[in-house]
Amino acid sequence: MAHLTASVEYGLHCLLGLVDAGEQPRSARDLAAFQGISPSFVAKIFPRLEKAGIVEAAEGVRGGYRLARAPETISVLELVDAIEGPKPLFECQEIRSRCALFDDGAPGWATRGVCSIHAVMLKAEKAMRDALASESLADIAGRLQQKAPPAFGMDTRTWFDRRIARRRSGSPAQGKDGTG
Amino acid sequence: MAHLTASVEYGLHCLLGLVDAGEQPRSARDLAAFQGISPSFVAKIFPRLEKAGIVEAAEGVRGGYRLARAPETISVLELVDAIEGPKPLFECQEIRSRCALFDDGAPGWATRGVCSIHAVMLKAEKAMRDALASESLADIAGRLQQKAPPAFGMDTRTWFDRRIARRRSGSPAQGKDGTG
Repeated sequence: MAHLTASVEYGLHCLLGLVDAGEQPRSARDLAAFQGISPSFVAKIFPRLEKAGIVEAAEGVRGGYRLARAPETISVLELVDAIEGPKPLFECQEIRSRCALFDDGAPGWATRGVCSIHAVMLKAEKAMRDALASESLADIAGRLQQKAPPAFGMDTRTWFDRRIARRRSGSPAQGKDGTG
Repeated sequence: MAHLTASVEYGLHCLLGLVDAGEQPRSARDLAAFQGISPSFVAKIFPRLEKAGIVEAAEGVRGGYRLARAPETISVLELVDAIEGPKPLFECQEIRSRCALFDDGAPGWATRGVCSIHAVMLKAEKAMRDALASESLADIAGRLQQKAPPAFGMDTRTWFDRRIARRRSGSPAQGKDGTG
């Protein structure tokens, strides 16, 4: 099992589907269908992204989500934190204060500053977080765009438009998850 | 919950108890008692460290474990990997190949190279692992030694010697976990 859950992978792939949508909202259900992943799984991720101010909901027939900010300003670190919640690399239980030699409680020198083991973990965690903070959603979208043929963007937009048209012809009212 | 388990914290604290022991083995049970942590928990960690060539077992009345190598050559990364096992930051499920536009299977451009999302995670993982690799068991022990008063090392050795003497007077045979 990996440290980060599949929610991060699902969330990031779906957000890529919002980058080229611009002001047009896309439903969580359509984004999930486009990526070939579980819609119920994706439905749980978007409220977290909305709470973090990364996406905003739009109601109506074309309801769904759009990015709340330019993708250049959304770091991968923000996305991971929004989806996973606060999860440190290491949780220090202050074992150092329990030493058998400390009959009358740990002396000041033993618990001064950060535990030396914890300090190493904090340094490693910072290195990881700095790396995630240095990449934005726009960086990832840009690399994907470089790989894809020119028709891919247009085909994508057509695919989403057809989903909306199909729903519109069936049912006029629609929630932000894209269900009728 | 943290990404790394309490086993890493317990294991590293116990290994610090082997650094100043030099060639003298210390039992897993005594190391756990010295740190004030669960001996049964610690008993599960040492076989992993032995398998990774970080500690070696010594049988006999003074049985237990000693470091298999100089602590300067044992990186924190090695310790984490030995205790936790291989655990990537992120597990790529190749979602990119499932796109709804790819009716006849994903085209070459879509699956060429590493997925752009996975690449960011690999970069962050490398930054974390590099930071853990840059610190050794000796580095942590050295910082602890700088904090502790001069008598701490002597008191520690006396404490372990007394545990062995007490067991020796009670039972001549003893396994590497320090039980009679």
